Amino acid sequence: MTRDPSCRFCAIVAGEAPAEVVLDDGPDGPCLGFLDIRPLFKGHVLLVPRIHVETLTDLPGELVEPLFARARELAGVMEEGLGAAGSFVALNNRVSQSVPHLHVHVVPRNRKDGLRGFFWPRTTYDDDADRAEWGARVRDALG
Amino acid sequence: MTRDPSCRFCAIVAGEAPAEVVLDDGPDGPCLGFLDIRPLFKGHVLLVPRIHVETLTDLPGELVEPLFARARELAGVMEEGLGAAGSFVALNNRVSQSVPHLHVHVVPRNRKDGLRGFFWPRTTYDDDADRAEWGARVRDALG
Repeated sequence: MTRDPSCRFCAIVAGEAPAEVVLDDGPDGPCLGFLDIRPLFKGHVLLVPRIHVETLTDLPGELVEPLFARARELAGVMEEGLGAAGSFVALNNRVSQSVPHLHVHVVPRNRKDGLRGFFWPRTTYDDDADRAEWGARVRDALG
Repeated sequence: MTRDPSCRFCAIVAGEAPAEVVLDDGPDGPCLGFLDIRPLFKGHVLLVPRIHVETLTDLPGELVEPLFARARELAGVMEEGLGAAGSFVALNNRVSQSVPHLHVHVVPRNRKDGLRGFFWPRTTYDDDADRAEWGARVRDALG
């Protein structure tokens, strides 16, 4: 499916819903980038494939490079263009995914910007055997 | 630089530091994946390019596709292999980056797993003009 008629991001891609577009590969191009209307920090960009795919796993292989090359470019913009100290590049698949159209968050970051606790709480493996068992599960699933 | 002698992840890539390796493209391949020793949730993988690059911006163009194709594959593993409801794929550039060797976090996610507040607090643009101005800054930086 190229477009989902109920999808907010497809409507933005089609030019039928408003958005502050910052990056547009054109109607036949792979990607569109626009400002998140509720940014983590100002300048927070959402980068989407123009076609409707729900998650990263659903992204056609030929779009992996174009999408993440643009993400890489936007990460540079956060520092060079917006003067941030760094950036955060992330995507949620299903859980915490507010719109079920794959979108890569590219967010400017600065020291002491309030997201220090971002990756908390962390856990630990019970012991070496527990960690090895989880490793084997991932390896087995990779095949 | 292919290897930074002071880098913990380069030592893992070289096989000189222990890690629960889950994905290995081989000594001449692009990527290595291993379990984070302080996982957000068990099964949390760190995916790295074998060569030492600090941030996404520093990643050579020809490694964008191999790295993120592997991230896509691991995102599938979180659901199909580990039974998670979804996944989180993220990388920090400079700020909140614990090891200055580019690493993509691929993390299993489940409903009510405690990371609901993950993207908080959000902010808002002051008004339409403020949003448009930030959009222009990003567009100008993209050139």
